[in-house]
Amino acid sequence: MKKLGIVGGVAWPSTIEYYGAICRLSIAFHANKGISGPPPVPEMSIESLNINKSFGLRGNNANDNESWARYDEYFRDALQRLQKSGAEIAIIASNTPHNRFRSITRGIDIEVISIFDAVAKECNRLNIDELLILGTAPTMAMPVFSDTLKRFGVDGFAPTSEVDRESVVKLISELYADVSDNAGERIRRVVDNAMPETGKNRAVCLACTELPLAFPQIAKATSLSVDGVLYMNTTMIHAKAAFKALTT
Amino acid sequence: MKKLGIVGGVAWPSTIEYYGAICRLSIAFHANKGISGPPPVPEMSIESLNINKSFGLRGNNANDNESWARYDEYFRDALQRLQKSGAEIAIIASNTPHNRFRSITRGIDIEVISIFDAVAKECNRLNIDELLILGTAPTMAMPVFSDTLKRFGVDGFAPTSEVDRESVVKLISELYADVSDNAGERIRRVVDNAMPETGKNRAVCLACTELPLAFPQIAKATSLSVDGVLYMNTTMIHAKAAFKALTT
Repeated sequence: MKKLGIVGGVAWPSTIEYYGAICRLSIAFHANKGISGPPPVPEMSIESLNINKSFGLRGNNANDNESWARYDEYFRDALQRLQKSGAEIAIIASNTPHNRFRSITRGIDIEVISIFDAVAKECNRLNIDELLILGTAPTMAMPVFSDTLKRFGVDGFAPTSEVDRESVVKLISELYADVSDNAGERIRRVVDNAMPETGKNRAVCLACTELPLAFPQIAKATSLSVDGVLYMNTTMIHAKAAFKALTT
Repeated sequence: MKKLGIVGGVAWPSTIEYYGAICRLSIAFHANKGISGPPPVPEMSIESLNINKSFGLRGNNANDNESWARYDEYFRDALQRLQKSGAEIAIIASNTPHNRFRSITRGIDIEVISIFDAVAKECNRLNIDELLILGTAPTMAMPVFSDTLKRFGVDGFAPTSEVDRESVVKLISELYADVSDNAGERIRRVVDNAMPETGKNRAVCLACTELPLAFPQIAKATSLSVDGVLYMNTTMIHAKAAFKALTT
């Protein structure tokens, strides 16, 4: 197995989800192969950042290039340290930085697997035509995710109503602080508003590592149907794509 | 806060315990300080090793210096990578390698906080005179932990009966695989055999990161009394000592 690099800490609970998922995938992969000793787990380097710092470096909007440049550098430096520590493949264990993926990965020599690419491929595998994107303010406002989906023939869109977007952002902070009520119902309300019936194959992308916490049954799954709506868990889709790359 | 380095993966569930504990301690530390944005969490570098490899490199006994030399090197190289990535303080998130602590940390410039030192200091704080050491075969067989305790005036000893030691080692592998029955009772039986009443202040050291899983109520505590026996959770004691060093 190749060595994996993970930029983590944004936020730390999702770093735990990624790390645990990779280890469990490795244990399943090596089961019944007659290996002596504890099941092999890939070597990993993790650079866990301070979310208070990365949050402060976020640009105020998509065009605030000066702030975003410092944000990008914070993540790029972490990838460079992972590369120096021998990581052969890397991931950033968070959706939001993927809106700056091209700039962050500039000058990085190892392969960095994009979460947006991994989700787009999973949409193709599941024959999804339309994807509702729920995530942090930058993920819903910036065009990077929907542009990626378009390259894979998928129509991706965030809620258009400001009220719905604010409701998602508020829910994320409540889920992070573990003080949310009726999280699943609140997501469903946004889905019903933002994704009218079209007859096409549709899914809802929980494109922020806190959002799957709204549906405990989805925590370890890549996607799951709840009350007739298919939800995609970006954390698990991304972790699975990373593990596959380590073993091929 | 200083940057922390963690050598992890041996085993991975305890790396999650350490990482989560440090993050939660940081959130508690920064609460009600009027900090804007998400609570600060220290930057961390984690080198997660392949436990199948480290297990294979273990010496067969305390004197098998050739095998242990390769084991030591595997951990020392990880510490060196952490140092290069900017870690200012480091820990090894596992008891067993601490039996080789002096050799592993040879040539490392940053402070590496020993789990055995941290436990010995905690014994002093709790006025413990005698400590029963339950852990992996090397931890129970090698004199390093009890020598450390002696420097702090604490009498540390492993079970003398081979049956009791084997029972502990078997329980650890069952807890790791999540297939154990009556784990708490089985530990209690070893305790009753190995630690006859002396009238002194005594405690049982769960000196292997799987053992606290036998008592779910101890998972997030540094120590806890269960049915009149005080158990010490080395993971939490070590994580707490590390976080304190980051902030002072």
